[in-house]
Amino acid sequence: MKTLIVHAHPEPRSLNGSLKDLAVSTLETAGHEVRVSDLYAMRWKAVADAADYGPDASSPLRVVGDSGRAFEAGTLSPDVRAEQEKLLWADMIIFQFPLWWYTMPAILKGWVDRVFTNRFAYGVGEHSDTKYGERYGEGTLAGRKALLSVTVGGPEPHYAARGINGPIDDLLFPIHHGILYYPGIDVLPPFVLYGADRMTADDYPDAAKAWRQRLLTLDSTAPIPFRRQNSGDYDIPSLQLKPSQEPPGQTGFPLHTHPTPPTK
Amino acid sequence: MKTLIVHAHPEPRSLNGSLKDLAVSTLETAGHEVRVSDLYAMRWKAVADAADYGPDASSPLRVVGDSGRAFEAGTLSPDVRAEQEKLLWADMIIFQFPLWWYTMPAILKGWVDRVFTNRFAYGVGEHSDTKYGERYGEGTLAGRKALLSVTVGGPEPHYAARGINGPIDDLLFPIHHGILYYPGIDVLPPFVLYGADRMTADDYPDAAKAWRQRLLTLDSTAPIPFRRQNSGDYDIPSLQLKPSQEPPGQTGFPLHTHPTPPTK
Repeated sequence: MKTLIVHAHPEPRSLNGSLKDLAVSTLETAGHEVRVSDLYAMRWKAVADAADYGPDASSPLRVVGDSGRAFEAGTLSPDVRAEQEKLLWADMIIFQFPLWWYTMPAILKGWVDRVFTNRFAYGVGEHSDTKYGERYGEGTLAGRKALLSVTVGGPEPHYAARGINGPIDDLLFPIHHGILYYPGIDVLPPFVLYGADRMTADDYPDAAKAWRQRLLTLDSTAPIPFRRQNSGDYDIPSLQLKPSQEPPGQTGFPLHTHPTPPTK
Repeated sequence: MKTLIVHAHPEPRSLNGSLKDLAVSTLETAGHEVRVSDLYAMRWKAVADAADYGPDASSPLRVVGDSGRAFEAGTLSPDVRAEQEKLLWADMIIFQFPLWWYTMPAILKGWVDRVFTNRFAYGVGEHSDTKYGERYGEGTLAGRKALLSVTVGGPEPHYAARGINGPIDDLLFPIHHGILYYPGIDVLPPFVLYGADRMTADDYPDAAKAWRQRLLTLDSTAPIPFRRQNSGDYDIPSLQLKPSQEPPGQTGFPLHTHPTPPTK
């Protein structure tokens, strides 16, 4: 398994740094190839701007059109092209980050904003009566899997179904579905460590054991069963879930995941 | 009304730039004081790191503890202190940005990550049997209002209740509730322009008219009725919404908004 780890924490000696190091050693010991994009160590440029598009930047700047032309011309800035190449190389992508203000740190959002360009991660595929481009289950990165490994400061009940912060699955949906599934990546259930702000060295062995267990069972872990855009579940081009597909009483983000089949 | 506009788009001659300029002129003409944080023009540093905490940065770096100590010591980096001062000055905060990958651009997330420090935006207030700190309706920024003005590339049906991207209110909930309501800011319903990627100069006058109308009625616009954390709706310290408060059949983010009273 070729694994890319995208890591986003400023302190190497942090819980996130330890979990990243453990992922590298665990996967390499198991015989997998591992590459790491340590965004803070790389001093990753977090802000998308005209410099990303080189000679293809127009004036006024048009992010969608310019990034697509630069991608097709091979003139995106070298740091962006290097990350796109790593994504094409990988068949598993692990994101290691702390949940800051209920989503990813800015440096990681900037990796998405700059690397997921037009014609690479979106603006792919044809439109017809039965197809609205290749996205949500199809696209450039189809055939790959991803996993979020997230540390959360607060306790688990605050992220439960009725918890005040909102359910963790709903908080992560825009990343799982909107960023990763969109260009075709299958998304595995996340690895979430709660109460990270209060964790001590004594708590680490249990966390490490649970993380190692997830890492060694990635191949046998079923992805989140998101609905494919062009599978017939959605009207085209309105992309509304067809009423016939809607589980009674269900609303919101869970509509876009296939209902769990009843267990016999 | 003292209004702070936080603007996040790389191109001044963009739709976002025009909406920001229109907000400034409309509010100033109406007699309001306006200050603007144009993050790209300011070359805002998007990445939180030890440099933000000056002499209070510990080694290993601890983002929560170090940012809180630096805030209390007045030793946060000058750019961060300047933004905190603007927030304390303002009674209305408008965020103007394009929805990139279903949330804010990295430069704006970096503004949140760096400016919303411990002891300023979180880690405020005492804990007791009836209070879990001052957050979600209470906090340093209580008494202020905020509004998101967001441009969206795709068409509105894709963001409707059953739209494939998820409902826009759910996509914005982590910003509305998790970032803005958390330190006490009341949040007005957002101003969202759909189909921005396909908008032409001919479409702009209608968009500008709608935006001007929103700007001139901010005072009379009711905020989203999020539930206050310490109001009795939640168990403390689990912060689960009490079953007695749960509208039948409702789940997910909408649980944390008071049900709309039936109209007579």
